[in-house]
Amino acid sequence: MYIENIKSPQDVKRLNYEQLNSMCDELRNALLEKLSAHGGHIAPNLGFLEATVALHYVFNSPVDKFVFDVSHQCYVHKMLTGRMEAFTNPEKYDLVSGYTEPSESEHDLFIVGHTSTSVSLACGVAKARDLKGGNYNVIAVIGDGSLSGGEAYEGLNNAAEAGTNMIIVVNDNQMSIAENHGGLYQNLKLLRETNGKAECNFFKSMGFDYVYLNDGNDVEKLIATFKSVKDTKHPVVVHINTLKGHGYKFAEQDKETFHWGMPFDLATGKPKVSYDGENYSDLTAEYLLSEMKKYPEIVGITAGTPTVFGFTPERRKKAGKQFVDVGIAEEHAVALASGIATNGGKPVFGVFSTFIQRAYDQLSQDLAINNSPAVILVFFGSLTSMNDVTHLCFFDIPLICNIPNIVYLAPTSKEEYFAMLNWSMRQNEHPVAIRVPVNGVIASHNPVDSDYSDLNRYQINKKGSKVAIIALGSFYELGEKTVDVLHKKYGIDATLINPRYISGIDSEMLDSLKHDHKLVITLEDGVLDGGFGEKITRFYGNSDMKVLNFGGKKEFVDRFDIDEFIRKNHLTAELIAEDVMNALK
Amino acid sequence: MYIENIKSPQDVKRLNYEQLNSMCDELRNALLEKLSAHGGHIAPNLGFLEATVALHYVFNSPVDKFVFDVSHQCYVHKMLTGRMEAFTNPEKYDLVSGYTEPSESEHDLFIVGHTSTSVSLACGVAKARDLKGGNYNVIAVIGDGSLSGGEAYEGLNNAAEAGTNMIIVVNDNQMSIAENHGGLYQNLKLLRETNGKAECNFFKSMGFDYVYLNDGNDVEKLIATFKSVKDTKHPVVVHINTLKGHGYKFAEQDKETFHWGMPFDLATGKPKVSYDGENYSDLTAEYLLSEMKKYPEIVGITAGTPTVFGFTPERRKKAGKQFVDVGIAEEHAVALASGIATNGGKPVFGVFSTFIQRAYDQLSQDLAINNSPAVILVFFGSLTSMNDVTHLCFFDIPLICNIPNIVYLAPTSKEEYFAMLNWSMRQNEHPVAIRVPVNGVIASHNPVDSDYSDLNRYQINKKGSKVAIIALGSFYELGEKTVDVLHKKYGIDATLINPRYISGIDSEMLDSLKHDHKLVITLEDGVLDGGFGEKITRFYGNSDMKVLNFGGKKEFVDRFDIDEFIRKNHLTAELIAEDVMNALK
Repeated sequence: MYIENIKSPQDVKRLNYEQLNSMCDELRNALLEKLSAHGGHIAPNLGFLEATVALHYVFNSPVDKFVFDVSHQCYVHKMLTGRMEAFTNPEKYDLVSGYTEPSESEHDLFIVGHTSTSVSLACGVAKARDLKGGNYNVIAVIGDGSLSGGEAYEGLNNAAEAGTNMIIVVNDNQMSIAENHGGLYQNLKLLRETNGKAECNFFKSMGFDYVYLNDGNDVEKLIATFKSVKDTKHPVVVHINTLKGHGYKFAEQDKETFHWGMPFDLATGKPKVSYDGENYSDLTAEYLLSEMKKYPEIVGITAGTPTVFGFTPERRKKAGKQFVDVGIAEEHAVALASGIATNGGKPVFGVFSTFIQRAYDQLSQDLAINNSPAVILVFFGSLTSMNDVTHLCFFDIPLICNIPNIVYLAPTSKEEYFAMLNWSMRQNEHPVAIRVPVNGVIASHNPVDSDYSDLNRYQINKKGSKVAIIALGSFYELGEKTVDVLHKKYGIDATLINPRYISGIDSEMLDSLKHDHKLVITLEDGVLDGGFGEKITRFYGNSDMKVLNFGGKKEFVDRFDIDEFIRKNHLTAELIAEDVMNALK
Repeated sequence: MYIENIKSPQDVKRLNYEQLNSMCDELRNALLEKLSAHGGHIAPNLGFLEATVALHYVFNSPVDKFVFDVSHQCYVHKMLTGRMEAFTNPEKYDLVSGYTEPSESEHDLFIVGHTSTSVSLACGVAKARDLKGGNYNVIAVIGDGSLSGGEAYEGLNNAAEAGTNMIIVVNDNQMSIAENHGGLYQNLKLLRETNGKAECNFFKSMGFDYVYLNDGNDVEKLIATFKSVKDTKHPVVVHINTLKGHGYKFAEQDKETFHWGMPFDLATGKPKVSYDGENYSDLTAEYLLSEMKKYPEIVGITAGTPTVFGFTPERRKKAGKQFVDVGIAEEHAVALASGIATNGGKPVFGVFSTFIQRAYDQLSQDLAINNSPAVILVFFGSLTSMNDVTHLCFFDIPLICNIPNIVYLAPTSKEEYFAMLNWSMRQNEHPVAIRVPVNGVIASHNPVDSDYSDLNRYQINKKGSKVAIIALGSFYELGEKTVDVLHKKYGIDATLINPRYISGIDSEMLDSLKHDHKLVITLEDGVLDGGFGEKITRFYGNSDMKVLNFGGKKEFVDRFDIDEFIRKNHLTAELIAEDVMNALK
């Protein structure tokens, strides 16, 4: 056993090639052991295992600086930099995050989780080095999939011009999360097929020196390659051909499924827990496929994450040219949608809340200013759907709802979601975004409209007095519970409102509440700052109505305990009811 | 005279080459006549004049679709598509906008003003065509300067894969707004020098067919070139070499100055009105240059607009390697700044309010989550600084102030601005953004702190009672005026507060106001939705304090009358005072 003795990269440098290869096997086994029990990014780490060993063998971290893209491939890096136990001791599995994390180690430079940032961040590291005088190496690691993102390209463009030491390792495993898409990838293919010799070379065209290695999972060759560029005085791209999921046959065979996964059985590759109930991803894809058959102008769009709205490989095949994966390129996805909608098509862009952040200016300029009737489905928008700090999904409300012209809808049930989706695809007046519920697929208890073109009309589902609860989207259920608690525990007969529209207020209804209500509370499953509730509060600013806003505090939180987080923000029916009673005193 | 008879592109098609050349001269003269009297984008339109004529000669707009990047080069397109009078009749100069505008003409597809969007939008237009069945041409026009933006690259990547008709005209005038920066540009140079023959070709590497034309201001050759690609069945890049400012010697000689300009004297090229007073752009650059001499780790960053913070060509030269122009690439600029700050450098990124929108995810992920102590100077953040709908500068407060960890400051005077800037560059705790005042360089009437590390401490500059005015940044002056009006006209002795921090509230001070105030008003020079004032209102939601928020309504407005806009939003001291008196009733 070698890995128990690896306390720092220095210990890697002492091994010979045979020992390094044995260590790689041990690292792979430990990784698989942990990931099958714990879940995480599987195939990206298996594919970059040998390269990580070689990088630490050749370079001298933390003097030399590694910057990982997405950093979902950093597990082996963590194992080699003093954090082995978090991968070998099940009790310590949760001691490390799934991404690089400076608070864990001086070998980690940045907290990173979104794609296409490593070259840009590394440019900054190199620029500071050059300003202050230093001669260490700066190494950016980036996958072929991440190369489709505009930030990566902007970084490459600047890196090439900087003209000093910068080594960009392109980890080409011929996959993004799903398959790659884009013209660039035929060039990477050409480069692989010509062993890096083709004259027409994307990286050279951008101004880089260029080195190719076909055997990107061969430690010895990787070491020789990295040695050849160490201490270079100019920017160089090291393009290595790796096998995603290397060494675990199920991952090698189904790279998309094993990109990231929940715990699985090591012997069979099957997930340990499977969920059989309805979910909005599958329901959405089935609905869209059925619509696509009827209407050739409908087109699904993804930015590299097709399964977020249910477009598995089989469904993508069924959709044919009515489904477009633009690669990890959210900016383009939004602009493309606007272009399609402007020319009479009907685009539906499905996207994670955390990733729609990457397209603010496109939402504003390409889409909203042009009032293009595209549809955007924002998935997992919630305070608690993801709890890695880099993947928080609770900023989409302030991001989207403060842009003029966009109608941002918050359905509360299955019927309402599909009614809104159906309407959004048949109207041609507005860009429409829909915040897909996260609280399970539940049936509506209330009548659901089919037409949402009369904007910003809230729905009173229960008329009470004194206290009105405006409960948005996924938090409508919490509103219902709060009504119950107020009634049962405090004898209060509260009004319950489904606002439906995140992006505008129903002044008439809000006004009418003044007659027989003293307190309005708003519930939203997102950050409070810049969000929905503040607009209600502003409306009542010049009145006697008191208003309490419930939602999340503005803060970055990481791997938080959901129950504790919910309590801290007073987001249970009991805590809300207590606050209501205090406000009524 | 030909141009008086040009009512539509059909009239262009009737002319022979000699007549076309004569018409180009007439178009140039008319353009120069208007621009010298009216201001606008000068050199981009002069350089693309012949190409526009050739495009309309060869293609059949509006059946064939043109999508312009930034669309600041669309003046000749407007002249040829039924809007000639807006360029030849001084009384009608303002009938057209400075960008493409679908409400003006069926020949304009999108409202566009930010860079790097044309290929993406055109991809959408082409995709809708392909879904619905159509065989017209889709032509995207993009300048070499705009190619540095990530969205352009994301679009190219997808366009190449789409595999159907799409013609991308790269208007290579060897300039961005300032000079070009980035590795890409050595490839464009190589292509020009080899007459497009070099094997290493960025566009081919991205999967495009490629055609080069060296004489990009020669109508006859342009026509032949465009004819050669018309009705192509696959994506092709037509790379044309043009002269920015073509035909006007002052513009040819000083392309940066003549990129955009206010009215100028046609005979001398000198601006008709010059402003001699102090301005924050020049003051900032001089301050930074002086700091750079003392501290080698300081570096100024621009994304293609160096003069926004005073970095003229002379000052850029003085700054040397302590100034980086990354090209039009705001995402990279922010990530670069974060990387520099993380590694001990001190980056200062100067940017227009409207363009910082292009980097939301980088502000959040690359900068704020990492708490990198970079400095961002947001210029022209205001309701009224720019009034083209694509360049509105009033969304930066919701954009930035709702991201955790970023300290967003709003200085009210010259002294306070430089105190804040000085502090921001000497601290290492927070990413700091500063909203540079827009209301002239004015002296402070109040003591100014030198240390802002005790966050979110507001400053009471005048203690009154009953009414408290929280007047943010550039609107502090409006707060002072409102205090005056309230005093003189209504005998009210209002409290005046300079909040200084946009990104947080001073709970203690706000609490203390409850004792002897009935009404708090907030004034902000930005959109109200998601902004500063709403946070104050939320704070008081559960109290008897009434709150009025003054700022802009959430809407896209275009070429608006500033006085009318100000009145509509009740943003004069008199109108505010009236609202205050009504609220106190």
